[in-house]
Order: sequence, then structure tokens, then C-alpha cells
Amino acid sequence: MINYPNKKANFIKTKTDHSNRGMSFENIINETNEYYLAHDKAVIHKKPIPIQIVKVDYPSRSGAVIKEAYYKVPSTTDYNGIYKGKYIDFEAKETVNKTSFPLSNIHLHQITHLESIMKHDGISFLLIFFKSLDKIYLLETKYLVEYYNRSKEGRKSIKYAEIKENGYLIKEGYSPRVDYLKAVDKIIKKG
Amino acid sequence: MINYPNKKANFIKTKTDHSNRGMSFENIINETNEYYLAHDKAVIHKKPIPIQIVKVDYPSRSGAVIKEAYYKVPSTTDYNGIYKGKYIDFEAKETVNKTSFPLSNIHLHQITHLESIMKHDGISFLLIFFKSLDKIYLLETKYLVEYYNRSKEGRKSIKYAEIKENGYLIKEGYSPRVDYLKAVDKIIKKG
Repeated sequence: MINYPNKKANFIKTKTDHSNRGMSFENIINETNEYYLAHDKAVIHKKPIPIQIVKVDYPSRSGAVIKEAYYKVPSTTDYNGIYKGKYIDFEAKETVNKTSFPLSNIHLHQITHLESIMKHDGISFLLIFFKSLDKIYLLETKYLVEYYNRSKEGRKSIKYAEIKENGYLIKEGYSPRVDYLKAVDKIIKKG
Repeated sequence: MINYPNKKANFIKTKTDHSNRGMSFENIINETNEYYLAHDKAVIHKKPIPIQIVKVDYPSRSGAVIKEAYYKVPSTTDYNGIYKGKYIDFEAKETVNKTSFPLSNIHLHQITHLESIMKHDGISFLLIFFKSLDKIYLLETKYLVEYYNRSKEGRKSIKYAEIKENGYLIKEGYSPRVDYLKAVDKIIKKG
């Protein structure tokens, strides 16, 4: 009997937990992109993981089986596509860090790629999931580049406060889960 | 001595052979995209091959080794990126056929994807390499869709003559190898 209220409290707590828990950030974004596709809002896909295939077997009467392969360092970002006629390109990263986003989380050539997209009039950004804070931010490439350049002379991370100030907070919902195109709308409006 | 002129003729023939021979169509396109990237003309990349990973080993002191994996049917196209602020998306296919391009060469969901990009104001197309004729054509999605719809009631291919009439012939060069953006320029100009 004594435990009962606590149990109830726990149950309620579980129910009000944010939807991110238990589902990977990647899956949440994929689900969001499927929603956009199904509603004909945008065509944005995750690129396959780049792999170096070394050995392939062809057992009789069945398809090819890859027997030896290695993960390659991706040369671009994870996601790209089209929205309102605009080219969209982004990388999604998560961190358990509560006060900053470590720049070691993202490859230099990915930053270079995002910058290149920006210069070609595409919309490129980083989606950052602060796991411990349960907060998702969209940070435009121009800020990412600015902080990356700063990191050459010191601080190797972007402060949470800086992301909060310059990024867009993406509120979680049910359908779509992470409606990041709302922030993209603001970017488009800004011009 | 009798053979000499023939040998010479063969040699000359080899020299004047089109550059496509001996290099895969995929590599020629990749080389072209690298040229565009290096000259800051466009940012267009080939997507990695989609693979279903089943088993991964982690031998000590070295990276992960994929020990069992399978090729997946691609859900989109091979190439996408940005050019003059426009979203570009295409699939590249080759055929040894001399009189037509068999529609069985392309997956239905790839056609659906290309059509979806077209509707979202992107520029999408098929690059077709007629190997035996040593000719490369760019065919816009609107024609691909038209011929695909026709195929439901009969002819399962696009005639070479139709591609010649409605597509853009891409002349081969040395640098870049297959300057398909010239045709894209015409598409953009047409509006």
C-alpha cells in the first residue's frame, strides 16, 4: 500500500516522458521524412551508409551475399532532398552533453560540404539532439562554420547557450515527430 | 609488312575511339561530378549502395568488419545534388540495345521518385548510355513518365528515335567527361 502512490507517480512520469526516449534520433527523423513524403510536403531521404565491399559470394539459386565489407567515412551528410523547390541538406547528431555540442562529433569534410551547399543557395544545417536535455535544435551552417573557425584557436565545442540563441528549437510532436521544416520555413522567409 | 597498314589503322581507331570505352558509365559520371565540385560549379554526389547489414565482427584492435550483408533495392535514384540553386536528381542507366531503352532497366519506385522531384520543382532526369552506339542522352522525367504510362498498354521500351527526338545528346569530352549540366542549362532556360 505504501508503494502504491509512488508506482502511480512513476507511471504518470513515464507517460509524460518525451517521445524521443526509446527511439533513436535517426529513426525519429526517418519517420518525420516519411510523414513529409506521404503528405507530399517534401522529398527528403537518408542516404545509405557508405560501405567498402571487399568480398561477395554468389551461392547457387540465391542472391549475392556480401562476406567482407568495411564502413567508410561519409563524404557528405546523412540527409538531403527538396522542399518548396529548395535543395535541403543536413546532418543529424546527438550528444549526452548538457552544456555544449563537441565539434569532434562532426567530420571536417561534412562541414565543408554543408558550407558548399550554403554557397550554392541550398539550405543546409545541423540538427542537434541534446539527449540529456531532451531538446532538438536546428543550427544553420553559417553558425556551424563560425564556431568551427573559432575552434581552431581554442574552444572545441559550441556552447548550449549559443545554440539556444542562434538555433531554432524544434518542438516534438506526434505526427510528424520532429517538424524541422517549420524552422526551414523561417529560414526561407528570412531569405 | 602487309599487316603494317592494318595495324596502324587499328591503332588509329583505338586512339579515336570514344573515351567511354574501358571506363564504366558510373565512373565517367563520378569523374564528371568531381570536376563540377572541384570547379565549384555544382555539388552532385552518387549515393552509396543501399545495403542490409546482418552481421558485424569487431576484431580486437581494429575497426568493425561486416561479415554478412545483402544488397537492397534502392528506394531513390543514384545521384542528387544542387546546381544553380536547383535541386538535381537523376538515375544513370546503360544498355547494349541499339534501337530502344528497355523500361525493365529502371525500377517503378525510381520513376515515382523522379516524378515526385519534378512536381516539387526539382530537375530530374534519366541519363541513358547506349553502349553499342556510344551515345549518351539526357531524358527529362516528363518523357520517362509518358513512356512508362504507355508501357502499361503495350510497348515495354522507349525507342531510340524517341529518345533522340525528345532527349538531349550529351557530347563526350575530356574534362568534364560527360558535361550533362549543359543540357540542364537548356532545361532551366526553357523554364
